[in-house]
Amino acid sequence: MLDASSRQVDDFITKLFPDTVNQELREASMHLLSAGGKRLRPFLVLTSCELVGGEPDKAVPFAAAIELVHNFTLIHDDIMDRDDLRRGVPTVHKIYGTPMAILAGDTLFAKAFEALLRASGDVPPRRLLKAIEAVTKATFEVCEGQALDMEFSQRLRVSEREYMRMIEKKTAALMVAASEVGAIVGGGTSQKINRLRRAMRAAGLAFQMVDDILGLSADERKLGKPVGSDIREGKRTLITIYGLNRATREEREVIFRALGNSDATPEEIREAVGVLTRLGAIEYVSSMAEVYRQRARSELKKFNICSPRERLLALIDYIVERDR
Amino acid sequence: MLDASSRQVDDFITKLFPDTVNQELREASMHLLSAGGKRLRPFLVLTSCELVGGEPDKAVPFAAAIELVHNFTLIHDDIMDRDDLRRGVPTVHKIYGTPMAILAGDTLFAKAFEALLRASGDVPPRRLLKAIEAVTKATFEVCEGQALDMEFSQRLRVSEREYMRMIEKKTAALMVAASEVGAIVGGGTSQKINRLRRAMRAAGLAFQMVDDILGLSADERKLGKPVGSDIREGKRTLITIYGLNRATREEREVIFRALGNSDATPEEIREAVGVLTRLGAIEYVSSMAEVYRQRARSELKKFNICSPRERLLALIDYIVERDR
Repeated sequence: MLDASSRQVDDFITKLFPDTVNQELREASMHLLSAGGKRLRPFLVLTSCELVGGEPDKAVPFAAAIELVHNFTLIHDDIMDRDDLRRGVPTVHKIYGTPMAILAGDTLFAKAFEALLRASGDVPPRRLLKAIEAVTKATFEVCEGQALDMEFSQRLRVSEREYMRMIEKKTAALMVAASEVGAIVGGGTSQKINRLRRAMRAAGLAFQMVDDILGLSADERKLGKPVGSDIREGKRTLITIYGLNRATREEREVIFRALGNSDATPEEIREAVGVLTRLGAIEYVSSMAEVYRQRARSELKKFNICSPRERLLALIDYIVERDR
Repeated sequence: MLDASSRQVDDFITKLFPDTVNQELREASMHLLSAGGKRLRPFLVLTSCELVGGEPDKAVPFAAAIELVHNFTLIHDDIMDRDDLRRGVPTVHKIYGTPMAILAGDTLFAKAFEALLRASGDVPPRRLLKAIEAVTKATFEVCEGQALDMEFSQRLRVSEREYMRMIEKKTAALMVAASEVGAIVGGGTSQKINRLRRAMRAAGLAFQMVDDILGLSADERKLGKPVGSDIREGKRTLITIYGLNRATREEREVIFRALGNSDATPEEIREAVGVLTRLGAIEYVSSMAEVYRQRARSELKKFNICSPRERLLALIDYIVERDR
């Protein structure tokens, strides 16, 4: 996203893993981080800090912590969802085995807090504690969201409302925390912090909706993982929820031939996606993402015009318009 | 261990999991905690706080945090080691499946930090940050120790020195942190904190050595898990390291017929244990545990005579003399 600061954050993370750390553990822990990723959350931390008038340099440890938490949850989610690819490379458990992948995730989680504590010289203790609290709460919410996501894939019926509650925790919570932590470190007022929280909640919901669409329709090489894996894993996305609610019995059968069927053929996946498309599910989710984009934009526009505000607005456009 | 305060810590933990939490996630997270356990680490936190002149009530959130971290690592270790039983009940992944068990561990880890942050009204911010740092470092060390433990079980040769470094991280680090955190919260001087750290490092090493012996010789019902599982899993304990270093070729063959052989029969396990016993390995480890007990005792005796000191001395005797 933001080249120079992104490198600063990556350097900070690398320093948390000195050579003294068990080599395989270090490699497994760094594998996903080294594979790239958008670094969207560190960008949120640094830019939110700047937006409220803080020095983004001071927010680097916090940006690192949020990215570490994000990668920790991805590594564990990939084990739970049995995903083989992420960011175009084999997942950690595929290369290092499940035990080492569990441990790599745990390690990133511990290192996230180490990152936060390294800020203790530069940030007043009360502010630091508030930031630690925001990260802790968001991490727990991500766990809850993942639990709901897994529960939903075992259920026949999931409501749109339940879906929204799930992605709010699973996806939006950490983006909210990213902005919040940046603003806390930057010394933002609670009014500004809450405004950013509302903006990022909306942006996070839009992000997940777009992710769900890309999971069915993106270019596989750009996406870095197999198209249709959400369907095979039985994931309840807003697309499938909307579609199933409007499908005839025959259409439901076509959808369920692929949904949650780990042996579904590419043809069965294509047919299910075809039915969902004809039912207008993808168009609906697209328009919902647009609603949340506008909501996020209007919250951000309450800030005075300035460079970090414009960068956050551009980020929100990117979230909705991206192709990977 | 310490009935009234142990209940206080358990109540504190329960309150971290209100009814609003996804039910299966709550049950999976609480499963191992509800199955009992010695609550040795909370005892260490509270008693160390008292020993340096602090109010143990203020240390309750810290005792809860350490116990949560401990249980999180046990849940994940049981997945990695494929253990089916712990504390006399099926392990979390056996009941709820590996995905939910990974998530339950992650949840306990997040809740540990939530516990720490709940103390923020009662403990000065700088002290709280120091305690958070001690917990964070110890958690990472436990991960490193587990990585070494897994690595060793794939290797032919492991030295006693490597073993000591492994158990220092895997087992002693969290006991050290427990005492340290209690003493930090209680406002102990750095001299007293370091003395407690040294005592608990020695106690932690003795603890693991006794654990290794019990794993081969305890009453299975008291132990709460199958005797000999360390051998089947190929774990390098001080017993096997000492034994292998002194075994004839024939004796090595008997040991390796069971060591790391997940299909080893009870007879093969008994024969391997028989060889190790005849080689004096169990006696040696017993005497090493005794060495560390004395080291821990002598550090503790540098404190003036008082009730918490005597309770910690009794705990150290318990660690070495226990039968489960």
